[in-house]
Amino acid sequence: MIVHEATAQKIDNNDFVHMVFIWLKNPDNQEDRAKFEASLKKFIDSSKYVKTKYLGLPAATDRPVIDNTYTYCMILTFASKEEQDKYQAEEVHKTFIKESEHLWEKVLVYDSEGIW
Amino acid sequence: MIVHEATAQKIDNNDFVHMVFIWLKNPDNQEDRAKFEASLKKFIDSSKYVKTKYLGLPAATDRPVIDNTYTYCMILTFASKEEQDKYQAEEVHKTFIKESEHLWEKVLVYDSEGIW
Repeated sequence: MIVHEATAQKIDNNDFVHMVFIWLKNPDNQEDRAKFEASLKKFIDSSKYVKTKYLGLPAATDRPVIDNTYTYCMILTFASKEEQDKYQAEEVHKTFIKESEHLWEKVLVYDSEGIW
Repeated sequence: MIVHEATAQKIDNNDFVHMVFIWLKNPDNQEDRAKFEASLKKFIDSSKYVKTKYLGLPAATDRPVIDNTYTYCMILTFASKEEQDKYQAEEVHKTFIKESEHLWEKVLVYDSEGIW
């Protein structure tokens, strides 16, 4: 198996940007968090299509326009919409969902193509 | 005036990531869009604190978990939370809001600090 690791954290204006917000059922459960993070990292690092990756936690900001209720935020970039479509269908993606979907309560996705 | 232009589109794991989703009142009005984009670009390119910038439109994807109703999505990175706090208070930020707030209906922000 060829393991492709997305390391360069570069968003290019022409990239397809896939933002995923995840709310875990038990965000305070450290075992659930560790399982989720390990399963997600294994998936992303073995995806053939992910160009850059970022996983973050809510920052310590709080204003009326800010939603800081999510557990994790992931930003992935792809060379094109077609590459992202292929990523959706990858076996490692299906494995991740099978392993981890019992842990989350809600997933919200924003996909975007850049103008600058 | 020193104009600092954020050009390198690099998200570093240690960066503070500021994601802003904007819904314009009249997203089909090309004049409103042009005004908004020009005002935003002038602001971002003259901010002293923005490290990297990205402005995108909803991609042509549509699944139940996807929200593609927004007009614009902006991803900015900052070296730290403190730099982002300073950006919130910049004069050019206030000018942008004064120039453009009549154009938008809703703004939703997610701030994040990276773990990988």
